[in-house]
Amino acid sequence: MRKICVFVGSRANYSSIKSVMKAVAEHPALELQVVLGASALLDRFGNIKDLVQKDGFRIDYTFFNIVEGENPVTMAKSTGLGTIEMAMVLANLKPDYVVVVGDRFEMMAVTIAAAYMNIRVVHTMGGEVTGTIDESIRHAITKFAHVHFPANEDSRERIIKMGEDPQYVFNVGCPRTDLVAEELEKDSAAELRNLFKDHGGVGSSFDLSGQYLLVSQHPVTTEFGSNRRQIEETLEALNRLKLPTIMLWPNADAGSDDISKGIRTFRERNKPEWLYVFKNLPTNIYIHLMNTTACLVGNSSSGVREGAFIGTPVVNIGTRQNKRLRTENVYQADYTADSIEEGIRHQLAHGKYKSDLLYGDGKSGRKIADILATVNPPVQKVIQY
Amino acid sequence: MRKICVFVGSRANYSSIKSVMKAVAEHPALELQVVLGASALLDRFGNIKDLVQKDGFRIDYTFFNIVEGENPVTMAKSTGLGTIEMAMVLANLKPDYVVVVGDRFEMMAVTIAAAYMNIRVVHTMGGEVTGTIDESIRHAITKFAHVHFPANEDSRERIIKMGEDPQYVFNVGCPRTDLVAEELEKDSAAELRNLFKDHGGVGSSFDLSGQYLLVSQHPVTTEFGSNRRQIEETLEALNRLKLPTIMLWPNADAGSDDISKGIRTFRERNKPEWLYVFKNLPTNIYIHLMNTTACLVGNSSSGVREGAFIGTPVVNIGTRQNKRLRTENVYQADYTADSIEEGIRHQLAHGKYKSDLLYGDGKSGRKIADILATVNPPVQKVIQY
Amino acid sequence: MRKICVFVGSRANYSSIKSVMKAVAEHPALELQVVLGASALLDRFGNIKDLVQKDGFRIDYTFFNIVEGENPVTMAKSTGLGTIEMAMVLANLKPDYVVVVGDRFEMMAVTIAAAYMNIRVVHTMGGEVTGTIDESIRHAITKFAHVHFPANEDSRERIIKMGEDPQYVFNVGCPRTDLVAEELEKDSAAELRNLFKDHGGVGSSFDLSGQYLLVSQHPVTTEFGSNRRQIEETLEALNRLKLPTIMLWPNADAGSDDISKGIRTFRERNKPEWLYVFKNLPTNIYIHLMNTTACLVGNSSSGVREGAFIGTPVVNIGTRQNKRLRTENVYQADYTADSIEEGIRHQLAHGKYKSDLLYGDGKSGRKIADILATVNPPVQKVIQY
Amino acid sequence: MRKICVFVGSRANYSSIKSVMKAVAEHPALELQVVLGASALLDRFGNIKDLVQKDGFRIDYTFFNIVEGENPVTMAKSTGLGTIEMAMVLANLKPDYVVVVGDRFEMMAVTIAAAYMNIRVVHTMGGEVTGTIDESIRHAITKFAHVHFPANEDSRERIIKMGEDPQYVFNVGCPRTDLVAEELEKDSAAELRNLFKDHGGVGSSFDLSGQYLLVSQHPVTTEFGSNRRQIEETLEALNRLKLPTIMLWPNADAGSDDISKGIRTFRERNKPEWLYVFKNLPTNIYIHLMNTTACLVGNSSSGVREGAFIGTPVVNIGTRQNKRLRTENVYQADYTADSIEEGIRHQLAHGKYKSDLLYGDGKSGRKIADILATVNPPVQKVIQY
Repeated sequence: MRKICVFVGSRANYSSIKSVMKAVAEHPALELQVVLGASALLDRFGNIKDLVQKDGFRIDYTFFNIVEGENPVTMAKSTGLGTIEMAMVLANLKPDYVVVVGDRFEMMAVTIAAAYMNIRVVHTMGGEVTGTIDESIRHAITKFAHVHFPANEDSRERIIKMGEDPQYVFNVGCPRTDLVAEELEKDSAAELRNLFKDHGGVGSSFDLSGQYLLVSQHPVTTEFGSNRRQIEETLEALNRLKLPTIMLWPNADAGSDDISKGIRTFRERNKPEWLYVFKNLPTNIYIHLMNTTACLVGNSSSGVREGAFIGTPVVNIGTRQNKRLRTENVYQADYTADSIEEGIRHQLAHGKYKSDLLYGDGKSGRKIADILATVNPPVQKVIQY
Repeated sequence: MRKICVFVGSRANYSSIKSVMKAVAEHPALELQVVLGASALLDRFGNIKDLVQKDGFRIDYTFFNIVEGENPVTMAKSTGLGTIEMAMVLANLKPDYVVVVGDRFEMMAVTIAAAYMNIRVVHTMGGEVTGTIDESIRHAITKFAHVHFPANEDSRERIIKMGEDPQYVFNVGCPRTDLVAEELEKDSAAELRNLFKDHGGVGSSFDLSGQYLLVSQHPVTTEFGSNRRQIEETLEALNRLKLPTIMLWPNADAGSDDISKGIRTFRERNKPEWLYVFKNLPTNIYIHLMNTTACLVGNSSSGVREGAFIGTPVVNIGTRQNKRLRTENVYQADYTADSIEEGIRHQLAHGKYKSDLLYGDGKSGRKIADILATVNPPVQKVIQY
Repeated sequence: MRKICVFVGSRANYSSIKSVMKAVAEHPALELQVVLGASALLDRFGNIKDLVQKDGFRIDYTFFNIVEGENPVTMAKSTGLGTIEMAMVLANLKPDYVVVVGDRFEMMAVTIAAAYMNIRVVHTMGGEVTGTIDESIRHAITKFAHVHFPANEDSRERIIKMGEDPQYVFNVGCPRTDLVAEELEKDSAAELRNLFKDHGGVGSSFDLSGQYLLVSQHPVTTEFGSNRRQIEETLEALNRLKLPTIMLWPNADAGSDDISKGIRTFRERNKPEWLYVFKNLPTNIYIHLMNTTACLVGNSSSGVREGAFIGTPVVNIGTRQNKRLRTENVYQADYTADSIEEGIRHQLAHGKYKSDLLYGDGKSGRKIADILATVNPPVQKVIQY
Repeated sequence: MRKICVFVGSRANYSSIKSVMKAVAEHPALELQVVLGASALLDRFGNIKDLVQKDGFRIDYTFFNIVEGENPVTMAKSTGLGTIEMAMVLANLKPDYVVVVGDRFEMMAVTIAAAYMNIRVVHTMGGEVTGTIDESIRHAITKFAHVHFPANEDSRERIIKMGEDPQYVFNVGCPRTDLVAEELEKDSAAELRNLFKDHGGVGSSFDLSGQYLLVSQHPVTTEFGSNRRQIEETLEALNRLKLPTIMLWPNADAGSDDISKGIRTFRERNKPEWLYVFKNLPTNIYIHLMNTTACLVGNSSSGVREGAFIGTPVVNIGTRQNKRLRTENVYQADYTADSIEEGIRHQLAHGKYKSDLLYGDGKSGRKIADILATVNPPVQKVIQY
């Protein structure tokens, strides 16, 4: 039995890898190991410990490694601490493969610990282009990874260009699409019935069958210092439209505090009746919101990825998703209220788009598990040129 | 004044960057900051603190981060600890650029701390191919680095192929060659006169004007577990030849203990009169040894690099320098006493080679300082394809 | 010049040591070094960096060491990380004495780093009895400390009983009293005029010239798991009285999240018009509140200490201040709404108490600086029996 | 079943707690958990992992936490790192009690992690007086510990004087004596027959049935900087006597490198035929050496403790065992060759002493296990005065 260790560092991470975990757990030749760390355990960012267990997974290890401060120094220190913790976890779990998801800062900790300890690294969602610190992290992980599961063809080609051995680079589509596909078999209206009652949050509830906006804007780490202004422009655009709006709290990257403060101050000053803010939402609920919203606004990768499959109208703001492969559902805005407002009006006029399989067909998890059961990359990588 | 922070993690590191440090310190538009860590401060691996100060450099910070154990787990943990320490150092020094040398494990700590803190990363000696964990580290650093100073043309091309922006990739030759060129202006025989008296070590001294061997063999981290056998084959080959031999202690990588034990046991059992072992030697002394030895045996990168410029006959053993660009002075042996013996006999018969400028012309340091004074890469990197 | 390094780990800490910092900075034979860490740098708990600088102190080092999670595991990890950081800070600052304030968990980090590095440890506020983990920490610091400045005679005697050398144990009174004395020379009504306007917070403001309550309740770390229920009982008592009430956010100890959640849930459900919640307040403002409130409710040490000097009527809830020396101004309640309500009613009926010098006369800072300029304890402590 | 977790940090540690581990493992109401860390895993200081397993114990966790450098800074950093690691170990093992042995620096890490996590701390060998940093550590651990097992009556009384609750302080004698008693039932001459053959080391072997010296001298951390001179005086005294001598390598405390260098240099210069140096020896072998040596020289605690039970003539040098309770077998020397020589000559003239039960009767392990099965201290300690 090959032991496959999956590290989950955040709620978003979990959505990106859950179908893989399920497929690995069900595969007769594979044994799943689950490690939770970083913001996956923090209430502030949506503690997923109970959720993971409720989904039927046994958690082998958990560790806290986020050094508080939410700035560039603590990003580095959290990674250092995570490396120390992960080294101990791996020394005890002794997996054959460690699955690293995406490109958040803590993923370098997992990658370094595994690679230095001669454990093969599996990377999902590599090869994409975004133009932030996440981009450097993603490509650096690629250079450590032994097996690559990019989410689309474009990314597969890029990974190979970077010198990786093509026989270990597999375009299996995006595992997030698996969840989306599964979820969309249900009735969105029914799933969202108790949204405001069940998920906390603050603001006045409204009728979801009408036209409403969904907003998810995260800090841009390389623009540390500008995040406060950026969210303020978004809020200004929203304030002009005054459509019913659901907004999500930002993630834990450096700059998160600035965005949080921007939202808080806006609420105190403007007491916007049209705005409802959730700390976080279950992924499935989020998918149904993406399915029924008139427009998703912000810089979340979900707009570009899941949005393609669902056909969500998206206004993507600024540089965070720069160059990530996208389909026609995405309208690009810059960091001004005018540009954002224009984008939203454009999407309101257009309405929903039709589904695009650019990011997968909903069966990525099973494909990955099947490959992991048989692939045999050398521990000692060599660049292909 | 641009502040250029150089991190030195080992004695070998220092040789690779000393001429750059000198050129930066002397440059009117640059201010040098020096940080010492990892094995650079450990007596066991050649503490260079006094040496660096004697060379006229002010040391801004030092930190100990090597977790003892010399195995894959402690390699990861030392890197985690180094990341934490380096984050604090950079928060205090606030440099504009951080210079990262080569590819040893602790360099990931420096790279991550700098990149996450939005400080530009300068990388020397990138783009080479070796096929060990160092290779993954080297390429991962490349993906974080903003300015690249590969040591040869081959490496420059490889870095660009990996998607780096050509306008920030400069083939300036290898800074180690600067030291070699400077040193070779002196008389080797005179410089080596008091070798055995001045530098400690154990064994019987001998006359260096005759034919003698120089041995430097380090652990291969991806072959952890095999290092004991590997050094034993080398010692067996040497024992057959019984030529006067100078051997150097291995570096601090995982597996170092195995090599040390192999040497110690061999000495106890065979009491070899022909063998003299040094814990470590000043770089300049080492260069004169490379200039006068009949053959350099082992897997040190110095054989391939400095060896090319000096014309040293080299027997390179095993995989550690795999694919590193080399000139005709290098004879490749595998991990058997027979192969090693044959290589040495071949080189003894051949004698010295003529100098090759593949790894630089001796002016790399000044070229790097000049570029650092004016280069202006964006903090936010984007892959070129 | 003796170098005296003061570590400040929180806003409360700063109040406890500010007058000492001032006296050290002004003393001709002493040089002050200031290090900020732990929650002193975190917005959530009242970042005091700007305040410290505005007060005229140069900050030598800052470091983030709080691992997020606010539970017993992260308390231990934050202390470990703090020890690592503090070791580097001390290696660079090379102070003669390190001043450790009180007994919060991060203080063990400072103490261990200093003591292991043969730097003399000065401890303020030792010798008190509280019966929580703080008590173990406080006495353990005493066993490492070379010079002791307990805040009252009772504590001085206890420290000596524990085996410390009496010639290095000085009852100088509590430095917090210095600030209180200085502050009370001002007019409280004037100082509080813009309270609701200037200090953020949520709720409806009210007239402070009338009868109002002040509430400050922190988690009890040894009762982890019960903190939610404890705050709910307090809130229930307050809800019965419905007097205008100012409440402060809890500190960063394990269990803090439970209290925060309790308050948040209570506000959402009951929408109490009589409640105003501040994240934190400047110490001087807090003193004027203690001077004018009809009753301070909760488990803050301020009720017992500053309360004695000010004469504040206090209802102290539960075990957190167990056995801390107290004067007649303190009414002891248990963790039930009934007991708390009864206590408040008792204090409302009684009104203000007269000042008691049990915790100092307002000149502690200068006394401490004078002693530090001349005291000469041996680095090597020996127990006195 | 109560879960009792024992942390072993060094070879000496293991000797101090092995009989307790055995008794806990055999006790029907107790479950033993074993954690190895610090120098217990390092070859340089005698890796005991195999030994512990061979003795029949299952090891639950191991971790490397010694930051290399062997100086006061790394002592602090190793403790910080150890705290982080131990927090994770305890979060996974969830023991009811953690047993902390003695007073070495890493023990603070174990103590803090356990106490902060509300796990009861059991301390063996507390209450002793030595006058080094170990003394501060030992007493600080006492202030955190919930159950105390001092090794003699004198220590028991001192712990109670420090304010600990007498009902949780038990004089059970020293568990090291258990091993000594068990070992002395064997024939020392037979046990030592293959000493020089089996245990490595360097030097010329000699006949152990004659008069010979045993030397064990460790660094004194508070005299950092003087350790080189101290060992040189000892070596000078030995060089005057030129009796057959067995010397042991120093432990890992700050200053260890100075002692090692002193020994190495002495050997190179004087090539002493009478000196045989072991890196380390199994405890049982060491006991038989203590039983047959003409005199034990140095500053090891074994001279004072085990020496009392065995009756070994001891010359104790300097301050390291200051004030540790001792019997007439110990001659106190200062740091001069003259004083040390005189001491040795005195002991050679006197010969062996008779056994003294000051440090236990050989049944401590079982007594401790029995108490741990039933004792019920509160998690929340309060000082007794």
